[in-house]
Amino acid sequence: MTEKNIQVLLARRPEGEVRTSDFKIVETPVPQIADGQLLVRNHYLSLDPYMRGRMSAAKSYAQSVDIDQVMVGGTVGQVVASKHSGYQVGDHVLGAFGWQLYGVSDGTGLTKLAERGVPLSAYLGVIGMPGVTAYVGLMDIGQPKSGETVVVSAASGAVGSVVGQIAKIKGCRAVGIAGGPEKCAYVTKELGFDACVDYKLGRLTEDLAKAVPNGIDIYFENVGGPIFDKVLARMNPFGRIPLCGLISQYNAIEPYGLKNIGSILINRIRLQGFIVSDHFPRWTEAIKNIAQWMQEGRIKYRESVAQGIENAPAAFIGLLAGKNFGKQLVKLI
Amino acid sequence: MTEKNIQVLLARRPEGEVRTSDFKIVETPVPQIADGQLLVRNHYLSLDPYMRGRMSAAKSYAQSVDIDQVMVGGTVGQVVASKHSGYQVGDHVLGAFGWQLYGVSDGTGLTKLAERGVPLSAYLGVIGMPGVTAYVGLMDIGQPKSGETVVVSAASGAVGSVVGQIAKIKGCRAVGIAGGPEKCAYVTKELGFDACVDYKLGRLTEDLAKAVPNGIDIYFENVGGPIFDKVLARMNPFGRIPLCGLISQYNAIEPYGLKNIGSILINRIRLQGFIVSDHFPRWTEAIKNIAQWMQEGRIKYRESVAQGIENAPAAFIGLLAGKNFGKQLVKLI
Repeated sequence: MTEKNIQVLLARRPEGEVRTSDFKIVETPVPQIADGQLLVRNHYLSLDPYMRGRMSAAKSYAQSVDIDQVMVGGTVGQVVASKHSGYQVGDHVLGAFGWQLYGVSDGTGLTKLAERGVPLSAYLGVIGMPGVTAYVGLMDIGQPKSGETVVVSAASGAVGSVVGQIAKIKGCRAVGIAGGPEKCAYVTKELGFDACVDYKLGRLTEDLAKAVPNGIDIYFENVGGPIFDKVLARMNPFGRIPLCGLISQYNAIEPYGLKNIGSILINRIRLQGFIVSDHFPRWTEAIKNIAQWMQEGRIKYRESVAQGIENAPAAFIGLLAGKNFGKQLVKLI
Repeated sequence: MTEKNIQVLLARRPEGEVRTSDFKIVETPVPQIADGQLLVRNHYLSLDPYMRGRMSAAKSYAQSVDIDQVMVGGTVGQVVASKHSGYQVGDHVLGAFGWQLYGVSDGTGLTKLAERGVPLSAYLGVIGMPGVTAYVGLMDIGQPKSGETVVVSAASGAVGSVVGQIAKIKGCRAVGIAGGPEKCAYVTKELGFDACVDYKLGRLTEDLAKAVPNGIDIYFENVGGPIFDKVLARMNPFGRIPLCGLISQYNAIEPYGLKNIGSILINRIRLQGFIVSDHFPRWTEAIKNIAQWMQEGRIKYRESVAQGIENAPAAFIGLLAGKNFGKQLVKLI
């Protein structure tokens, strides 16, 4: 066990691209706990695109991280000291202790993890926030019907990979959009999507047309920008677009101007932004179904794991650039 | 009664701005009717923004008008000859006979108008397609709750004027966006909106901020373009945007690029395109309520009436440029 807590603080607000110098790594004492509290040693930190928004002062759906404060983030770990009647040393917990090795809690917002036979890290991915995001966005907003075509961008990512696999389970044609031949091969051969379009080939319009011969009924949007415009051009009447993320725009100084708004009118499309934290009542059902599908071998996942808290900033920058493959984690132990 | 039928045909497909030379006016014989048919002399022709789409070859939600065919459009008129058991000479009917003086029908798509004590022309406006469009878009997609703020663009138009008045009836703050001081004065003083922002003053951002101190819960969108972007910047969490029209874009060669898509994500907004013809089951309720509110003096309307079929092209071009005041009609008799 490390004797010191190591923390990653926000050093300054990035303009445009995030740089490692926007973060500051500090050593602090391991916190002491009071009565009713417990101390957690984090094993994995989750890195997610939404964190880019927390680095900015601009209005978003959650409060910004203050300068010199610990970066926010989901974590899984183990209780190493407890003065809380509900927790014992050795318990595994899901929390939001941020980019650091240790966290103190009075139990608020903490989830004790039942033994499901899945690795601890999966609670940050496929059966955690990204998995539930995929489930809620596709099922509640997308409302897939058998035989429909579902397209998802960032298809090899933590959310996108689950979206396409649930679409297949629901009897849909699943088409991914991803960057590069390795990601596309993973999406079709390992995850079982019907097709994957490599946007980096620069012929998205033509390749998408071939991949969706019957048009698009549901577009699960993670990226924004010109890809969104090209997908809009192939949407079917009464299509649904769960808007989950706009990762191509998070570093942008000047946002991309979306031109095909006319398709939303002409095709009577429903475009709906959502955030998984608004949908807590759906969490239990989502986790239960995803865990079941995992056991049946119908949902697979992959992780990109950076080693050591010191490498969290570089891994996060890589995530924003699409360098990860599946769920991006940082191993802290 | 005119001895000849006069028709306005589509002469060529406009690129960008519509010109009178895109139309051709012809005289043809008054049609003869066969058994089971009836002949209608049209009294009013409705001019509506959607007609711009029908002039283009591009895919839209309805088929284009072919070159040298009569322009499509809603009409009200009177039966002048009948070999149809359901119609007698003198009956008033709502139909879609297009830009011409006479129409023949076997009854399909025709509505016999009951005596409600409202002028015939109102069936093309406030208690016709535009009124039902306002009702369905606001009530079913917007889902207004008392105390919310509703903003509507093209607020003095046939649809927008009804949207704001229903919003007031439902206990909302109603704010219009319109072009010029006369339209804004009409919207607030005659229609009873709480505020109206004149976008032609060139300070929409500031004036909108003042008009919606508590942000915007529902934006009923008729125009698109930069106005849409500025409204998006002031939307509240969980806002709804019924997307009814994009009139600022209909003549555009290159569509405007919408930048504030991020607001849809951050605020979990539902943006939904709709077309009233998809909502026929709602027609009866909508007309019943609007007629009732009219009788109670709670819904008012105004018409811009061009005189004579020959002036339909110029009136339509004026409509696209926002020169009309309330519902744009052409009087044919």
